[in-house]
Amino acid sequence: MSGIPQAIGELIQEFSRLPGIGKKTAQRLAYYVLDMELEEALGLAKAIVHAKETIRYCDICMNLTETSPCSICSDVKRDETKILVVEQPRDVLALERMREYRGKYHVLHGHISPMEGIGPDEIRIQELLKRVDTEPLEEIILATNPTVEGEATAMYLARLLKPLGVHTTRIAHGIPVGGDLEFADEVTLSKALENRRDM
Amino acid sequence: MSGIPQAIGELIQEFSRLPGIGKKTAQRLAYYVLDMELEEALGLAKAIVHAKETIRYCDICMNLTETSPCSICSDVKRDETKILVVEQPRDVLALERMREYRGKYHVLHGHISPMEGIGPDEIRIQELLKRVDTEPLEEIILATNPTVEGEATAMYLARLLKPLGVHTTRIAHGIPVGGDLEFADEVTLSKALENRRDM
Repeated sequence: MSGIPQAIGELIQEFSRLPGIGKKTAQRLAYYVLDMELEEALGLAKAIVHAKETIRYCDICMNLTETSPCSICSDVKRDETKILVVEQPRDVLALERMREYRGKYHVLHGHISPMEGIGPDEIRIQELLKRVDTEPLEEIILATNPTVEGEATAMYLARLLKPLGVHTTRIAHGIPVGGDLEFADEVTLSKALENRRDM
Repeated sequence: MSGIPQAIGELIQEFSRLPGIGKKTAQRLAYYVLDMELEEALGLAKAIVHAKETIRYCDICMNLTETSPCSICSDVKRDETKILVVEQPRDVLALERMREYRGKYHVLHGHISPMEGIGPDEIRIQELLKRVDTEPLEEIILATNPTVEGEATAMYLARLLKPLGVHTTRIAHGIPVGGDLEFADEVTLSKALENRRDM
């Protein structure tokens, strides 16, 4: 970028690496940071360094944590007979916000996607199988995303887990609460119909 | 946020300080950074520190720069009889992208806004007046934003500059090129009519 001091150009460049941040937004963020008080701006830099230094995977559930095992895995009040399998750490966050599920989690860190070259060995499936051997499990709930890849991953896992004698379930798909039939896509509608239940 | 490791919570907090970044986006960014390669993530942190350490105001035009005077102020090929006055450094960037204006700039770093408690002394007006004394000026073009505050700032400056004998102009307001009459707001339309010219 001509006319831009190099340090600003680099900062714009770094911001635009982040997801959902285009060139214009990166510019706005960079100039905002330059306008901030020094301490405040360095706060962001320090938080990045600190998080990268202290955050690691939990040895059991593979969720992000500062200490392993993580606070959920080491919580004796949680139901150790259930594991809810999700794709990403932020899925755990969303589910915890519900304050209803009291079992444990397992984070795959991705989904199987032949298109992107991600096979079963690229995600944390081996670690899940190990838990089936060592933990007193009664149910594994597959909560991968309702996308093609998420469905494929759930199907793959179900096929692996069934011979091991664990009850394997899949979260329900349907019309979101507060959603409008009119605006639901065909696949969601057909899933909602397929999974209808008696009233 | 319960269940979130502290270092992640802090990172989310820091991201959500940035403009246009809500809590959800901050979360997405934080988890993305944690997923990045270490070197890449530290790149952003380093760029922030580096920019804050090296970027300063140009002593002449108050634009952000690594060396003072800045590359525009020290460029002898630029027309030193014209100063274009803008609110923010990113306005200079937008104008330079046009590759048409060959004069100099002056960055006010804000606008006069009694509502926000920003008076004429809070922005870089004194520095502009000093330039009127020392530089061979023929024209000062006021390009503050077409907002209430930007207009007020332009009017205030025009009143200050006229007695000093500098020709003071204001950039034109009207329908943007490629814009649609139908979607223009009333103020823009009335400005466009008011500033009509012979063809």
